[in-house]
Amino acid sequence: MKPSQRSEVPGFQVMSILAQIDALRAQGRDVVSLTAGEPGSGAPPAVNRAAAEIHAQGMVLNYSAALGIRPLREAVAAHYADWYGTQVDVERVAITTGSSGAFLLSFLAAFDAGDRVALARPGYPAYRNILASLGIEVVDLGCGPAVRFQPTVELLEQAAADGGPLSGLILASPANPTGTMIGREELTSLVDWCREQDVHLVSDEIYHGITYGGAGPATGRPSPGVSALELTDDAVVVSSFSKYWGMPGWRLGWAVLPEHLVDPVARLAGNVSLCPPHGSQLAAVEAFSSESMDFAGAQVEQYASARQLVLDRLSELGWGQLAPADGAFYVYAHIGEHLAEFGDSPAYCQAVLQQAGVAIVPGTDFDPVAGHEWVRLSLAPGPTAVAEGLDRIVAFHRG
Amino acid sequence: MKPSQRSEVPGFQVMSILAQIDALRAQGRDVVSLTAGEPGSGAPPAVNRAAAEIHAQGMVLNYSAALGIRPLREAVAAHYADWYGTQVDVERVAITTGSSGAFLLSFLAAFDAGDRVALARPGYPAYRNILASLGIEVVDLGCGPAVRFQPTVELLEQAAADGGPLSGLILASPANPTGTMIGREELTSLVDWCREQDVHLVSDEIYHGITYGGAGPATGRPSPGVSALELTDDAVVVSSFSKYWGMPGWRLGWAVLPEHLVDPVARLAGNVSLCPPHGSQLAAVEAFSSESMDFAGAQVEQYASARQLVLDRLSELGWGQLAPADGAFYVYAHIGEHLAEFGDSPAYCQAVLQQAGVAIVPGTDFDPVAGHEWVRLSLAPGPTAVAEGLDRIVAFHRG
Repeated sequence: MKPSQRSEVPGFQVMSILAQIDALRAQGRDVVSLTAGEPGSGAPPAVNRAAAEIHAQGMVLNYSAALGIRPLREAVAAHYADWYGTQVDVERVAITTGSSGAFLLSFLAAFDAGDRVALARPGYPAYRNILASLGIEVVDLGCGPAVRFQPTVELLEQAAADGGPLSGLILASPANPTGTMIGREELTSLVDWCREQDVHLVSDEIYHGITYGGAGPATGRPSPGVSALELTDDAVVVSSFSKYWGMPGWRLGWAVLPEHLVDPVARLAGNVSLCPPHGSQLAAVEAFSSESMDFAGAQVEQYASARQLVLDRLSELGWGQLAPADGAFYVYAHIGEHLAEFGDSPAYCQAVLQQAGVAIVPGTDFDPVAGHEWVRLSLAPGPTAVAEGLDRIVAFHRG
Repeated sequence: MKPSQRSEVPGFQVMSILAQIDALRAQGRDVVSLTAGEPGSGAPPAVNRAAAEIHAQGMVLNYSAALGIRPLREAVAAHYADWYGTQVDVERVAITTGSSGAFLLSFLAAFDAGDRVALARPGYPAYRNILASLGIEVVDLGCGPAVRFQPTVELLEQAAADGGPLSGLILASPANPTGTMIGREELTSLVDWCREQDVHLVSDEIYHGITYGGAGPATGRPSPGVSALELTDDAVVVSSFSKYWGMPGWRLGWAVLPEHLVDPVARLAGNVSLCPPHGSQLAAVEAFSSESMDFAGAQVEQYASARQLVLDRLSELGWGQLAPADGAFYVYAHIGEHLAEFGDSPAYCQAVLQQAGVAIVPGTDFDPVAGHEWVRLSLAPGPTAVAEGLDRIVAFHRG
């Protein structure tokens, strides 16, 4: 017996690097890991308190409704009014098992096998791998520095001219790994084009709130990003408690769905996942309290400090071009003058890990074409770890 | 924009019945719900204590490894030695987001679109709906009382002769909704046939331990059921903490994989789900303590009492044939003399709900062909609720 052909998705470099970190640490090596998109803060204290109380009471945690508990769906809807001034019908909010669950269910609900779905390269590799495993054709949009690593209407029209009409477009803003954001004007153009072309738009907004630009009107903090929901009711908007609220292990996210996808997603969810983790849902209602929002906002200031440390030392690092890290907690950098010496970014990352004791990730996980010249450094571990990592890399390059 | 064709999976009758229960209760009606496969006990107290401690400490819950934390994988492997005397390599244990996650990942890893996969009708509807949504052809094996509602080699050979070779077989023992179990001899025949025909065998053993037969050798309690792992290393064996341990809302299950599917499932899991809920995993290690196993075992005695109540009142209920409820916590019964009066089981269930205030589920969710003559009653609510429900149904029939 053999595995399916569709299971032949590529493995991630980052997984082997994580295994190497474990092995090095087991040998007593002190490794600074700037690999993972995992906030070091953990959940807001109020969320932890609520979860502790649920379990201390021995609450019976049965299946919830397939689209999640009503109070959490309402809290998510209210969050769109709070951050974006946008009214969202609670019936359109589906609580999911992480953003992963939202992608799986919305891809199944929107796309049939053979449909063509476009996305930016570089980008989060799970998009393409989930799509491919479902028999959906991935249409790569090569998005380099000239387009700030984001899709444009021109790229979409070219892709449709080259290979036939598109059924979907996946956007991510702020993006992983580049951190670049799509402005309101560009997003409006893309939303309009999708409407005209009858293309399902899926907007990954998981890094909203983790941004480093100007102050937004509502909070005094930087704008959380422009949500597709400000411009259209026809997009699938995906987000999660994993990043801004620091809760990746709780496996809780959501999708705001266009009306025509609500019933399909509900039916699929009732079969494919039954429901998201019930205890996580009950506790996550506390994530939107002002105490929790302040806690989460304070973490962004940590990422901003870490980001500034990298920007200040770019010339010492010898790295070249940097993707504009408008948001998210990554820096995506060309390895510049080191390319000639090391040959490619996987080799460079190996040398940095083995000789400097700092783990960063080669761009090959995110861009199978040009990623061998780029690396991703995660700011999520915070400024102390990032400062130590940068010191070591700079010292390594000085020899 | 339209939903995908593959999202056109049928909705469940049970969902509309659950909504009706809510509506009736909101009107002040007292409804006994014997619908859901959800133990009323909740998790073992030691699991709740562990979870409360994790959150009280504010533990940072990041992503776990895609196949789960090592201590839980080890505990699952040890459980197979404990219950079945079978050695399982811990590397073959994948912790998943409920058994749902195990089905999704193993179906993706084993089957391509167009592959033919056989399963029993009646059966758990999510099997067929997940398979169909992934483009896999569902091959119905009509399994009536003559074959104790379970697949046989003869049925499989007929299906292959009728429609071409099979790529997979899904077994469930004890089965939902019928409760019937596959004995060692029958399972051996099926395992042998799958090996000879190069067919992936997926064995759903989620109701193992919830059985009402003779005492097994190890525990003094009834045998947990025969695991496919006792007979072969080539099957995918799926189970979960949802039923025996009473933890459906924790979204935690597992698959024991054949070696050739371990890497495919790991790669798919890293893309499709990232990891199972981390807090649930940490707490669930406590599910295998002797205190927790005793707690779970005591719940089975409750289901057994509830089951006996139904058996004792069959003639009063006027129900006909009963599937042999060897295990699981359901009774699947032909509505017998009521068929003529009510026309079908959906109408009968409506009358029982509206007039007797008892919710049971029509067989149509489990068997699109013959289910309109059958109902499923859940024993999971325990003997007190079941006794009250039976009193009401009998009184309703007496008029």
